[in-house]
Amino acid sequence: MAFSSFERWLVKKVLGSVGNAPVGLILGEDDQTASINTASDPAVIVSDFKTLAQLALNPEMAFGDGYMDGRIQVQGDMVEFLEAVLRSMQKDGKPGLYSRLWSWRQNRADNNTTRGSRRNIHRHYDLNVDFYKLWLDSRMVYTCAYFPYESATLEDAQLAKMDHVCRKVQLQPGEKVIEAGCGWGALALHMAKHYGVNVRAFNISHEQIAYAREQARRQGLSHQVEFIEDDYRHITGHCDVFMSVGMLEHVGLDHYEELGGAIHRAIGNSGRGLVHSIGRNYPHPFSPWIRKRIFPGAYAPSLNQMTKIFEPWNFSVLDVENLRLHYARTLEHWLSRFEKSADRITAMLGAEFVRAWRLYLAGSIAAFRVGSLQLFQVAFAGSSCQRIPMTRAHLYEDHFPAQKERKWMTATP
Amino acid sequence: MAFSSFERWLVKKVLGSVGNAPVGLILGEDDQTASINTASDPAVIVSDFKTLAQLALNPEMAFGDGYMDGRIQVQGDMVEFLEAVLRSMQKDGKPGLYSRLWSWRQNRADNNTTRGSRRNIHRHYDLNVDFYKLWLDSRMVYTCAYFPYESATLEDAQLAKMDHVCRKVQLQPGEKVIEAGCGWGALALHMAKHYGVNVRAFNISHEQIAYAREQARRQGLSHQVEFIEDDYRHITGHCDVFMSVGMLEHVGLDHYEELGGAIHRAIGNSGRGLVHSIGRNYPHPFSPWIRKRIFPGAYAPSLNQMTKIFEPWNFSVLDVENLRLHYARTLEHWLSRFEKSADRITAMLGAEFVRAWRLYLAGSIAAFRVGSLQLFQVAFAGSSCQRIPMTRAHLYEDHFPAQKERKWMTATP
Repeated sequence: MAFSSFERWLVKKVLGSVGNAPVGLILGEDDQTASINTASDPAVIVSDFKTLAQLALNPEMAFGDGYMDGRIQVQGDMVEFLEAVLRSMQKDGKPGLYSRLWSWRQNRADNNTTRGSRRNIHRHYDLNVDFYKLWLDSRMVYTCAYFPYESATLEDAQLAKMDHVCRKVQLQPGEKVIEAGCGWGALALHMAKHYGVNVRAFNISHEQIAYAREQARRQGLSHQVEFIEDDYRHITGHCDVFMSVGMLEHVGLDHYEELGGAIHRAIGNSGRGLVHSIGRNYPHPFSPWIRKRIFPGAYAPSLNQMTKIFEPWNFSVLDVENLRLHYARTLEHWLSRFEKSADRITAMLGAEFVRAWRLYLAGSIAAFRVGSLQLFQVAFAGSSCQRIPMTRAHLYEDHFPAQKERKWMTATP
Repeated sequence: MAFSSFERWLVKKVLGSVGNAPVGLILGEDDQTASINTASDPAVIVSDFKTLAQLALNPEMAFGDGYMDGRIQVQGDMVEFLEAVLRSMQKDGKPGLYSRLWSWRQNRADNNTTRGSRRNIHRHYDLNVDFYKLWLDSRMVYTCAYFPYESATLEDAQLAKMDHVCRKVQLQPGEKVIEAGCGWGALALHMAKHYGVNVRAFNISHEQIAYAREQARRQGLSHQVEFIEDDYRHITGHCDVFMSVGMLEHVGLDHYEELGGAIHRAIGNSGRGLVHSIGRNYPHPFSPWIRKRIFPGAYAPSLNQMTKIFEPWNFSVLDVENLRLHYARTLEHWLSRFEKSADRITAMLGAEFVRAWRLYLAGSIAAFRVGSLQLFQVAFAGSSCQRIPMTRAHLYEDHFPAQKERKWMTATP
């Protein structure tokens, strides 16, 4: 069956909105279908005309919601499909008027005030911990891992990431560390156990804090690590090192100076710190669908925007490392584990939830592969800090042991 | 002899302008002197009342010019004196009205248009090459070196720096490189000789280009390296890698987008590059005296400002390394060599010149030690670049040979 002329116009608009990516489109189900570009695999299958019209009006939201409730399906590999779309959009895609209005309205609704942050964080991180246990590593690290060698497992890579950030700030036994946004507590516990530091770790997710405290008790680290259910804006007390891995995404651009101020109150001019965050090559709003369904209030800053945390306080940026390829790989592990537990997750949280999270994880893989998203680790120091390493060689000692069987990741992937 | 009450007021103003640094001040010469804080060593000796008044009005310019023509002397270690002043100014110093007016006038006069750049560069880099030969390394590298281990000489460290930047961009044999601001050609020749690439190297200093061409002939590299006497804005032709080490300081903030455009024309979306520049923790004008007497048109950007080169072109910043402690050490070598040749340089260029350059070199050591200046190496890649390293371990392979006698610079200096 062929498209009608109005359908053809809509299809052209939809494909145009994704930069005419090399993907096919099939309208209708079973034998009542019309299609375009289906020689090219993968393709998107749109169940009905109304969904097609929604795609033309607000492509990303309509695609996300349509995929979530089953009106839209993807034929072929989901990640490859999303990669093709993102790659083309990078070249030619432009958001239409409706998409831009939506994004503006959403920015206002999501604002990360103290109260707004609590609401936003609750929606994601207070999901049942048993759900996250099904697909994260055993330590429950829900941030970009670091794969120092080809054969590193997710378990290895999350450990390596924690060591990587600890080495970047040169933790010394007995030092005081404040962590902002500590998740289920893995890094705080790792720093205390392996680097002998005392940690005060902040988080506004009630469920995560409860889990983290329980872990501290089990590991006998409660005397060394205090988990505090509070906002980064309320951090008090002085420390040697400020650490924040994967929280900045939830701070919101309007609050970077407040975060900088909180860091400066904590480390003064003599301390040091690290901020690890999803970022971008240039300022751009976060995906509206992800913000609506997965991460309300999320924003990934450009490096220019991140410097607004540091420059007002005369902090020296010592080291910026872009780990986006590591996040793509981390997410591949997560998605693969997620799919293996898809039936259990469906029983737990429903089929819509599974489809939404599949799209989120697959879309994130695509975004980090293509470069729509970056991952910046920024190490910095106060203006009179006396612990600045001459070189970064100490980060790589483990890379060069006499373990010849490992193929080190020194070249292009 | 004691200060008069007006002199006391002036002295208070002068010391206040440098944040009441712990330095002494002596007015007058021989036995006709009045002094303050001279228990604290070092101190500044001001020959006459007029110079004292000038110091109160526009401290930095008056200090520089007074030191240059001998009306001001420094008692004790010059670098320590300048360090003490810079450290106090970081805390409390504020430029007065006259200083700010001067700085504004200077900004307008120095603008780095194509013609202005040529004039500005001529004044510094077209000085007799024999002068620079007296205190630079044998390859004439006039940018921050990289000291990978404690015992590295200046010679070692300049070689290590060239390898460090080549590795950061992962040069491959046969690739095309464009270098902007090539000095006397050392890096261009090094890249050609040791990495097998073809280089087109740009510079607007006539003397430096002539010297570089001669070096290429002597080393039999003229077929591989073309030295072009032209502005970065006139770069044409495509390349795999864009390299610029120590030129951005002369580009001027108003021209970063032009530089970004020139880079994008050269490497497109698929290439990669590196920009190495003196920088700052936050936006701040360059020293007015240095701009007047040493580097007209110079500016050291904050990281935020540097990102303006990259973000408009969807370049991914892959790696930022802050090497300020290496620049302090590089400058210590330069100053020490310079002092050893002070008599010859005096014969060549006069006593005023020697004092001016002593102040410039010593002041730069102090600024990099204290952190008024930073040194940023930024590696970046186009949005569709296929040569992005997973980790930075390949930069450090040399750091871990079986050479146990070397004390690697992995800890705080």
